[in-house]
Amino acid sequence: MMSESTAVDMPESSSVSKGKAPLIAAPMNKKGGYKKGVAIFDFILRLAAIVTALAAAASMGTSDETLPFFTQFFQFFVIAMAIVAGYLVLSLPFSIVAIVRPHAAGPRLLLLILDTVALTLNTAAGAAAAAIVYLAHNGNASANWLAICQQFGDFCQKVSGSVVASFITVVILVFLVVLSALALGRH
Amino acid sequence: MMSESTAVDMPESSSVSKGKAPLIAAPMNKKGGYKKGVAIFDFILRLAAIVTALAAAASMGTSDETLPFFTQFFQFFVIAMAIVAGYLVLSLPFSIVAIVRPHAAGPRLLLLILDTVALTLNTAAGAAAAAIVYLAHNGNASANWLAICQQFGDFCQKVSGSVVASFITVVILVFLVVLSALALGRH
Repeated sequence: MMSESTAVDMPESSSVSKGKAPLIAAPMNKKGGYKKGVAIFDFILRLAAIVTALAAAASMGTSDETLPFFTQFFQFFVIAMAIVAGYLVLSLPFSIVAIVRPHAAGPRLLLLILDTVALTLNTAAGAAAAAIVYLAHNGNASANWLAICQQFGDFCQKVSGSVVASFITVVILVFLVVLSALALGRH
Repeated sequence: MMSESTAVDMPESSSVSKGKAPLIAAPMNKKGGYKKGVAIFDFILRLAAIVTALAAAASMGTSDETLPFFTQFFQFFVIAMAIVAGYLVLSLPFSIVAIVRPHAAGPRLLLLILDTVALTLNTAAGAAAAAIVYLAHNGNASANWLAICQQFGDFCQKVSGSVVASFITVVILVFLVVLSALALGRH
């Protein structure tokens, strides 16, 4: 049945496809299309995450100006969110490489690992700020810490919005990690 | 050289190895060994993470008993760390599957995604608790929140230890995610 002249290449091979077998093109293309779609979605999510991270940093940064308050915490928050936003901007070229070359594992792997680190930093900043904001809203009776949001309502609202924006960034980063993992697993 | 009677079985291959092509065995074998090593390391790291997560939950849980204090926060912390420890215990069988079948992408992918979620939960709990513990140690002059660790030194020490244990768990989980990503990328 199988003579030398009609030997068919395996469809999975990323290496040489001589163009003798047009049947191979369909599955290759489909798989590449899936990965390319994931890469484009990754790029769009990254843009959204940049917006939310910058919004969180900017909102907290400007609220810091209006009330010199809890400076250490919120400086950490602003710096962490700025680092995350900066990393996301720098990761855009790698995301574009992943769109252009959907089968290259290198950039995807790099993005996955750095995304995980950025996710950890972002979550830590968001959760710490959320704890402080919660205290500012509710206070703590047993430690005699009084709620301060009655007096500084404007400040509290701005800071709460900033915390929410940072958690949206966390959700997007989790999605990015899951997407990269799915694309890596589909070899 | 290789007659049918002296065919040797491949040690690692889970699939069919006919014994006719001994040259293929070497790279396959090496790759399988690399992945198996990663999987074993993954399993050991998981055991270490279970210990640190349980230590964090138990230390915080018992300190909660000695001083009914900041209950909401520390309940969240204890619950989150217990969930992480429980997930890690449940993930051990999948890690064993990854050791037995180093080439299967499925369990590794599942572990990577769930590890990421556990990492986020753990980081959030650790960072929120760290913020509260920092306030308990240092207080905040502008909000009129006084430090309380002078009075409750024992409590503060126990809680700080718990926070440190939770951050060690975070570091191990980041390693686990990176390891899974590296194993997935090496197809």
